[in-house]
Amino acid sequence: MSKIPVIEMFGPTIQGEGAVIGVKTMFVRTYGCDYRCSWCDSAFTWDGTAKDKVTLLEPEAILNGLLELAGNNFDNVTISGGNPALIGEGMAELINLLHARGIRAAIETQGSRWQDWFCDVDVLTISPKPPSSGMVTDWDMLDNIIDRMRDSGRETCSLKVVVFDTVDYQYAKQVHQRYPWVPLYLQPGNEDVTEEGDISARLLARLEWLFNLVIADPGMNQVKVLPQLHALIWHNKRGK
Amino acid sequence: MSKIPVIEMFGPTIQGEGAVIGVKTMFVRTYGCDYRCSWCDSAFTWDGTAKDKVTLLEPEAILNGLLELAGNNFDNVTISGGNPALIGEGMAELINLLHARGIRAAIETQGSRWQDWFCDVDVLTISPKPPSSGMVTDWDMLDNIIDRMRDSGRETCSLKVVVFDTVDYQYAKQVHQRYPWVPLYLQPGNEDVTEEGDISARLLARLEWLFNLVIADPGMNQVKVLPQLHALIWHNKRGK
Repeated sequence: MSKIPVIEMFGPTIQGEGAVIGVKTMFVRTYGCDYRCSWCDSAFTWDGTAKDKVTLLEPEAILNGLLELAGNNFDNVTISGGNPALIGEGMAELINLLHARGIRAAIETQGSRWQDWFCDVDVLTISPKPPSSGMVTDWDMLDNIIDRMRDSGRETCSLKVVVFDTVDYQYAKQVHQRYPWVPLYLQPGNEDVTEEGDISARLLARLEWLFNLVIADPGMNQVKVLPQLHALIWHNKRGK
Repeated sequence: MSKIPVIEMFGPTIQGEGAVIGVKTMFVRTYGCDYRCSWCDSAFTWDGTAKDKVTLLEPEAILNGLLELAGNNFDNVTISGGNPALIGEGMAELINLLHARGIRAAIETQGSRWQDWFCDVDVLTISPKPPSSGMVTDWDMLDNIIDRMRDSGRETCSLKVVVFDTVDYQYAKQVHQRYPWVPLYLQPGNEDVTEEGDISARLLARLEWLFNLVIADPGMNQVKVLPQLHALIWHNKRGK
C-alpha cells in the first residue's frame, strides 16, 4: 500500500534551520519513528499522545491538502517526522507528484534507514543523533547512506547535528571527520521544548556558546552553525 | 599600485548573514565607498571619523596579518567595506594569494562597479541598496554585472537586499523579478546601529515582520529571509 501516515500539515511558513534556512515552505509531518530521542521537539509524532490525529493519506491527497492550505503560495515542501524514511513507495510517489508541479521536496531523516527515493529529494538532510539523545548511531548504515548519496552524483545531501553539550560537540566532530566532503550544519539544542513564552534569550545564549566552540576549533573551519529561526520567533508553539 | 586601504581586520568569527551564514570566517574591511547609505552600519569605513586607522597594505601583508591573527584556524575570508569593488589589481592579487593557500574568499559589494576579479570570488554577494538608503540604483550597471556573472558560468553569485519598510520590500521584489535565476536573500534592517545593550528583541520583531510579508506573497516563494546572527548575539559591537 502506498498510503502515508500524516500527523500534521501546515504552512506556508519559513524553514527555520539547516541547508535551506530562511525559505518559504509547507510542512508535512509523518507519524512514526524508530528513535526515541530524549529531547525530541516533536515527540507527538511517535509517543502516542496524538495518535488520534493521524490520518492515512494517499500521496495525491497530501498534495491536494497542501494546495488547499496555500494555493500557489509555495514552491517548497518539507517532509519531516517522525522519520519519513520509514515510508517507501508512498513517499516516492509524493515526491514525483510534487516535482510534476515544479515543487521542490526537502526531507529530514536521522540516517537509520535507506530509501531509494533519497536520490530524488531536492534537499536531503541526514541528522544523526548525538549521545544526549540516548540513541546509538548505526555507523555502518550511515556510511552506506552517505556513500550511496555520493555515488548518486547529486549534491543534494547535507548533515545536521544538534548539539546540547561538549560530548555532543565531539560527536559532531567525529561525523565531520568521517564525511568531510558533506556540508555539516551544527544547531544548538533547545533544552526545554515545553517552556512557554519567549525563549529567545536562552536560545541565543546557546548559539553564542556553540559559535565560540567552533571559533576556537581549527578542526571545524568549514561547518556552519545555525539557530532554529522559528524557535527564536515563534518559540515552542506548534504549527509554525 | 596594488596596495589596498584596510580599516580593520578581525576574526575568526562567524559569518552572520547571507549565502554563507553560519560559517567561520576572518573579516577584512576596505576603506572607501561610492555610496553614503543613511543607515550604513559601517559608516566609519567612509565618513572620515576613523581615517587615521586606515593603512595601505600590499595583498601579502593582508594575508600575513590574517595568519598572525588566526594561524590555521580559518578557511574563509570575507572582504567587505566600504565597497571592495573600488579596488582593482590589489584585490585580484589578494584573492589569488588566498586561493594558493586553500582559503576561500567571500566578497560583498553593492553592484555599482564591475571588477574582473568578481569571476574569481568563491562567494560574491551583490547587495543593491533599497530606497531607504537614500541611494539610487544604477540598473544598467547592475544588469551588466549580473549578466557577466551569468556568462562566467560559475554559480557563486547571490543577491542580498536589506529591507527597512514596505517600499524597500517592493524594491527587493523588483530585483527578484529582474533576476529570477539569482538566489536572493532578504535581511531586515537594523534601525539603530548605535543603540547599546541587547537589541535582539527589536531585531527579531523585524525578522518576524519580514517573514510575514514573504509568507503572504506568492511572488516571493524562493527568496530566503535571514537575520544578522552576529547582531542577535553581539548586538552593535564592532569587530565581532
